[in-house]
Amino acid sequence: MGATERDGSCDPAVARVERRLGELATIGADVGGGITRLAYTPAEREAHAQFAAWAEAAGKRVAVDAVGNTVAIFAEGEPYFLIGSHLDTVMHGGAYDGAAGVVGALEAAARIADEVRHGLRVVVFAGEEGARFGRPNLGSAAAAGLLSATDYARLRDAEGAMLADAAAALGFSPPSAERWLDRRIACFFEIHIEQGRQLELSATRIGLVDAIAGSIRLRIEITGRPDHSGATPMEIRSDALAAASQLILAVEEIARQYRSTVATVGRLEVRPNSVTTVPGHVVLWVDIRDVDADHQRQAARLVFERAQGVGEARGVAVTGELISNQAPVVLDAWPRAIVRGECEARRLAYRVMPSGAGHDAAIVARRAPATMLFIPCLDGVSHSPAERASPDDVALAAELVAAAIGRADHLIA
Amino acid sequence: MGATERDGSCDPAVARVERRLGELATIGADVGGGITRLAYTPAEREAHAQFAAWAEAAGKRVAVDAVGNTVAIFAEGEPYFLIGSHLDTVMHGGAYDGAAGVVGALEAAARIADEVRHGLRVVVFAGEEGARFGRPNLGSAAAAGLLSATDYARLRDAEGAMLADAAAALGFSPPSAERWLDRRIACFFEIHIEQGRQLELSATRIGLVDAIAGSIRLRIEITGRPDHSGATPMEIRSDALAAASQLILAVEEIARQYRSTVATVGRLEVRPNSVTTVPGHVVLWVDIRDVDADHQRQAARLVFERAQGVGEARGVAVTGELISNQAPVVLDAWPRAIVRGECEARRLAYRVMPSGAGHDAAIVARRAPATMLFIPCLDGVSHSPAERASPDDVALAAELVAAAIGRADHLIA
Repeated sequence: MGATERDGSCDPAVARVERRLGELATIGADVGGGITRLAYTPAEREAHAQFAAWAEAAGKRVAVDAVGNTVAIFAEGEPYFLIGSHLDTVMHGGAYDGAAGVVGALEAAARIADEVRHGLRVVVFAGEEGARFGRPNLGSAAAAGLLSATDYARLRDAEGAMLADAAAALGFSPPSAERWLDRRIACFFEIHIEQGRQLELSATRIGLVDAIAGSIRLRIEITGRPDHSGATPMEIRSDALAAASQLILAVEEIARQYRSTVATVGRLEVRPNSVTTVPGHVVLWVDIRDVDADHQRQAARLVFERAQGVGEARGVAVTGELISNQAPVVLDAWPRAIVRGECEARRLAYRVMPSGAGHDAAIVARRAPATMLFIPCLDGVSHSPAERASPDDVALAAELVAAAIGRADHLIA
Repeated sequence: MGATERDGSCDPAVARVERRLGELATIGADVGGGITRLAYTPAEREAHAQFAAWAEAAGKRVAVDAVGNTVAIFAEGEPYFLIGSHLDTVMHGGAYDGAAGVVGALEAAARIADEVRHGLRVVVFAGEEGARFGRPNLGSAAAAGLLSATDYARLRDAEGAMLADAAAALGFSPPSAERWLDRRIACFFEIHIEQGRQLELSATRIGLVDAIAGSIRLRIEITGRPDHSGATPMEIRSDALAAASQLILAVEEIARQYRSTVATVGRLEVRPNSVTTVPGHVVLWVDIRDVDADHQRQAARLVFERAQGVGEARGVAVTGELISNQAPVVLDAWPRAIVRGECEARRLAYRVMPSGAGHDAAIVARRAPATMLFIPCLDGVSHSPAERASPDDVALAAELVAAAIGRADHLIA
């Protein structure tokens, strides 16, 4: 999909975007394809260092905060505009989720740095993906004062490593009083791949995000009886997987009751997981998202109720646990209106849309104005080696961000 | 449950059974509890060697056939009575499945060896559990001419190791023309734990097996689309796990249509199995068993049909594969009648029952008369470190087998 692949475009911004995305893609590259730069790992730090090297090569001062967020100062001064995204990935992820936003932010900042009257910074947030520690937005939440030292001690990865220890091994410390995501930020801009197919299906290159869905995550454990698959009549079984199946279908049905709710059982573990044993134990995770906080809560309540109902009807023990609960965020209208104006000035089709996926912008939005620009990704695929986006679209979004900052720069005090 | 634990019984047969089961339980003992003596591993061979040592200590000649079945000759002559079971286990299995039958066979043979006019042998079949190579009864099937060198090259374990190579590493060769399970066997007796709860629930110590269920195993692969759990509306998802859930409930419903059919989805694998991704790919295994061959076939056909139906309704690709197909076996009535007579002579409650689990006796039954005696196992649990059976019951079953052989010895030519 790259411009250079398609038509050999020699726009230097597009070429630079493509080259930089390619360079980042070599960091944490998996042998079998895909990229693994998990939160708070040396691979993530290497990508931050690459970002810092690019900014320093452009003569910009770079600082890393106490929790590992990297900030490049493109123009001194306060209040300041902030542009950025993240450089960590899921396991075997793609080359665009996060990286497109960081590379786009560098383009946008370079374009406008010499013109702005206010400050201008580019940030790479640490640990945006929840893939390693189960909780996303670690860096931005810490900088916003929304993550505590207690969380650092509580959160563990699949191998049992504490976030506090993983951070310490890289020279970082648990969040302290140092909170820098605050009112000094005039506005935060994040460019990101859509991770869905709405832009692609409507042949639109730019999505303007008006709200970011929250998410409620539940962990549900079902305990039946492991029995021999041959020697146990159907009537005396307590099949944890059959119970789980009923619940999975109920989750789907509950989500369909509300227009904007999505609910997913994405992860499921069966024990003993043997062909000849009635499953005695299943753990499943439910992810419920909505831009409507009431619907989101209501759906989670219904899932819990249905889980209990299935348990009682089948004589299996069901326990549910609330793993995380993030409220939806409505983004400020004014920066979106400015970006929309830039789209219209260019006769560029855009689409105002909610984000089903969570983003650092949702965290920043709790402390300062924030807006997000989506670009299409091929077939809506993300979190996969097959993830693809167009360097043209990254460059286009960067141009819009730079133009919007240029306009906003004259509108704010 | 052991007699010595319960009442300090000093019956030497019970004490010997208990001691021998304890000794076997040390071979392949797992650190976390349970026993792992997978088919065609050094641990299985070590257990066979222990069996051989016991027989040789009693002055009996022991031979190992080309595929690893171990036979001890308690009395020369043909036709001969054969008693036995197996010494391999599933992963993290228990101390009684197979072992109780081998230890019981040694007791029975020792009791009657000096009295029989015909021959008498004890066999330990190799690789009875399907746990490692997906196919059970490897040793007995090879000795019955029901397993070929082609199967040896085709069957692989989870690590990709060929059965042919695993056997060769232990000094064994693929099955050749040497088939020794034939008409020279007057009758085969197998003592085994029930692996169900029917004996326990009816407080009966002996089950007389009249039929051994067959099994049809299917592998069903469902391919949907892995999508972001937040960014993908419910309407455009192709959720492989939701489709699998419908099929799992259909399997349960199909089994319930027939009185004697059981059907189980015991194993299920989800990809990518991430909380934030709509599952794109699920593989599940269906195990269908019945003592009625028509019902078994019919149920398998219905499962395939429902799988296709679910696939079409949900827009996911569904492919099914027949992994194995074993017909049910009806055991000869005459040896069972003799054992029943011995039970009645002792005023011992017994129960005539089918076996839902497969056994080597079902293989031998295709070449010679065979009968099985079940003893209870605690809570019906097997294939688990929690597997428990009573040494008293093993000794009782051995006494019945010895008495039945004594009677049959005079009835046959």
